[in-house]
Amino acid sequence: MPTISKKGNNIPPSPIRKLVPFADQAKKKGVEILHLNIGQPDIKSPVESLDAIRNIDLDLLKYEYSQGSYDFRNNLCSYYSGHNIYIKPDDIITTVGASEALSFTMNSICDPGDEVIIPEPFYANYNGFAQASDVKVIPITSKIEDNFSLPSIESFEDKINIKTKAIIICNPCNPTGYVYSKDEIIKIAKLAKKHDLFIVVDEVYREFIYTNLKHFSILEDERFYDHAILIDSTSKRYSLCGARIGFIVSKNSEFIETCLKFALTRLSPPTLALIAANEALNSDKNYIKNVITEYSNRRKVLITELSKLQDIKYSDPMGAFYSIIKLPVKDAEEFAKFLLTDFSVDNESVMVSPASGFYSSKDNGHDEIRIAFVLNSDKLKRAINIINLGLKEFTS
Amino acid sequence: MPTISKKGNNIPPSPIRKLVPFADQAKKKGVEILHLNIGQPDIKSPVESLDAIRNIDLDLLKYEYSQGSYDFRNNLCSYYSGHNIYIKPDDIITTVGASEALSFTMNSICDPGDEVIIPEPFYANYNGFAQASDVKVIPITSKIEDNFSLPSIESFEDKINIKTKAIIICNPCNPTGYVYSKDEIIKIAKLAKKHDLFIVVDEVYREFIYTNLKHFSILEDERFYDHAILIDSTSKRYSLCGARIGFIVSKNSEFIETCLKFALTRLSPPTLALIAANEALNSDKNYIKNVITEYSNRRKVLITELSKLQDIKYSDPMGAFYSIIKLPVKDAEEFAKFLLTDFSVDNESVMVSPASGFYSSKDNGHDEIRIAFVLNSDKLKRAINIINLGLKEFTS
Repeated sequence: MPTISKKGNNIPPSPIRKLVPFADQAKKKGVEILHLNIGQPDIKSPVESLDAIRNIDLDLLKYEYSQGSYDFRNNLCSYYSGHNIYIKPDDIITTVGASEALSFTMNSICDPGDEVIIPEPFYANYNGFAQASDVKVIPITSKIEDNFSLPSIESFEDKINIKTKAIIICNPCNPTGYVYSKDEIIKIAKLAKKHDLFIVVDEVYREFIYTNLKHFSILEDERFYDHAILIDSTSKRYSLCGARIGFIVSKNSEFIETCLKFALTRLSPPTLALIAANEALNSDKNYIKNVITEYSNRRKVLITELSKLQDIKYSDPMGAFYSIIKLPVKDAEEFAKFLLTDFSVDNESVMVSPASGFYSSKDNGHDEIRIAFVLNSDKLKRAINIINLGLKEFTS
Repeated sequence: MPTISKKGNNIPPSPIRKLVPFADQAKKKGVEILHLNIGQPDIKSPVESLDAIRNIDLDLLKYEYSQGSYDFRNNLCSYYSGHNIYIKPDDIITTVGASEALSFTMNSICDPGDEVIIPEPFYANYNGFAQASDVKVIPITSKIEDNFSLPSIESFEDKINIKTKAIIICNPCNPTGYVYSKDEIIKIAKLAKKHDLFIVVDEVYREFIYTNLKHFSILEDERFYDHAILIDSTSKRYSLCGARIGFIVSKNSEFIETCLKFALTRLSPPTLALIAANEALNSDKNYIKNVITEYSNRRKVLITELSKLQDIKYSDPMGAFYSIIKLPVKDAEEFAKFLLTDFSVDNESVMVSPASGFYSSKDNGHDEIRIAFVLNSDKLKRAINIINLGLKEFTS
């Protein structure tokens, strides 16, 4: 047999995916599964986006410009100016989701064997993109006791060497819900600048903030223009996950030109998705407001319900729509499986993500799960109750 | 300034892209440009695809399964069974165009420094995908005198070493228009099998055949099931270039499982595009027939017109919609630029692709261009006439 690549073999199997067959079996048995395992919002996409699709006046789906149409990128500039981010269309490359934005970024700044530093737990697929480019992820562990705030600058500086190319953070953070303060962003950006590294900030959850904190974008501070790379997407903000429109924004033109070369090789982002994303930008301003209000309510319900549980710790989701929960179990993956195979309440159970997949250090996260509060308050209450009762049975 | 990756720097700038500013300037001066430089068909997409989009009954664009929906993959199986290819949905990974199919393939079978052998001239973006994965392309030069048929098996075997992971061919071939015979396919597949290499065949132009030859797919012969990887797409067949739906097909389940890992990291192909592609599969069977008839007529016009030109050689496009033309000039890129900046006939000129970008060997192709016969017969006639008159002026 011909051989598979080492890097292909090295991509860890997704812990969520391992659970899918058990969820399918439960569904076959008639058990309703509440999905807290994936950041797929249940909120409707903007009606303007879907109407634009229904009204397309095209008889031929042509290639789009590799970097996305000028109109779309120009429209994005208006969106960003409402967030104190002042850019021009040439600072943007439109991508197939934030996923492709991260792949192009890795490829544009790293060669095989190079390193990127990421505070863990982090969005699990960063591992996959790094693996695909043979880039080594150097984790700095953030702690649930500190609500997963930024680890000390010294702990980052300790890991910087000749192979280090970038520091990557996600703000607000998937999977912890932590929102980095302006102070934290500036500190880490200064460190990157000092060592001439890129500072890559994934800001796809920019608007999802539930405290008095104001989101501070890496591109609000001109001092970091040469070093800052912003990763963004319409997926969460506009409930357009299936559209697959993301973007890379940077004032570093050499970096953007390199990303464009990678973008040219794959020709074009998806045309129809771009129409939907463009109309989302033009949609009623109350849309996002209402979305945030809804998530804010869900967060309150979540915290109220979680606070009733004994022997757990959880991160306060200040932003995004995730929380990490530390359970009184040895193996959270086993517990997640148990919920699907051996437990239900009124014929309902819950699917959660084992958190070990969000850590790069092998020993971390095995007693933690990540939940996404993407369900309405009623379902969320029932889900936390199921986790509570499930825990009692599992640990007894 | 932080540094850009070597591989990013090494991606050659697209020769077509270098010409774009000159085309834009010409258009600004009021000169109409006939685009023979890109494989963007002018033929309408299937009405069923666009109607399905206009009638979408969705209020939320959710993630699709990473490998594409079961229904779509099942529908593809029916399509393939009409081409003597018998596969099951699990043999398919849906991708963002054939581009992503090739990226996943490179990543699944090659580590940095590994080699793939490709007869040149080849589709220029193969270079980009290889570069992104730090894979070395080993070219075997095919010759216009042989109509770009398969170079000798010995010339391939000479290049095989411990780092060789695959042989990649495109059938029918972009950019030469050559259609490999069953005999050639079997010979090269046997060689791959003998050395336990993958044989990757890009068959996106499967139906585009204008001679009595029957297309022979790598997956028609069970002997090569372990080694064969088929790259495919709906882009050309259904004039759905902007949809961005491609697929990887293989009976090698270890390979498909590895591709799936890469697919999972980027979550989902574009949902709307998948709807359009699925309906294209269900569209009126006369659609493809009519498309091929139209291209067949264009090919006749092209050959008639090219045969009037002096001092050129051209490849007979037996399939796909491209031909390589060898010109009596030293630098075809200069000639392509000249057509845009200094030449027009009745206020019309032509944009062509310098062919050097389709070669991996530095010295090859500098006196050649590739043209895509994606325009109607009238425009095609005018375009070849412009090239003819332009050549006379350029060489005088």
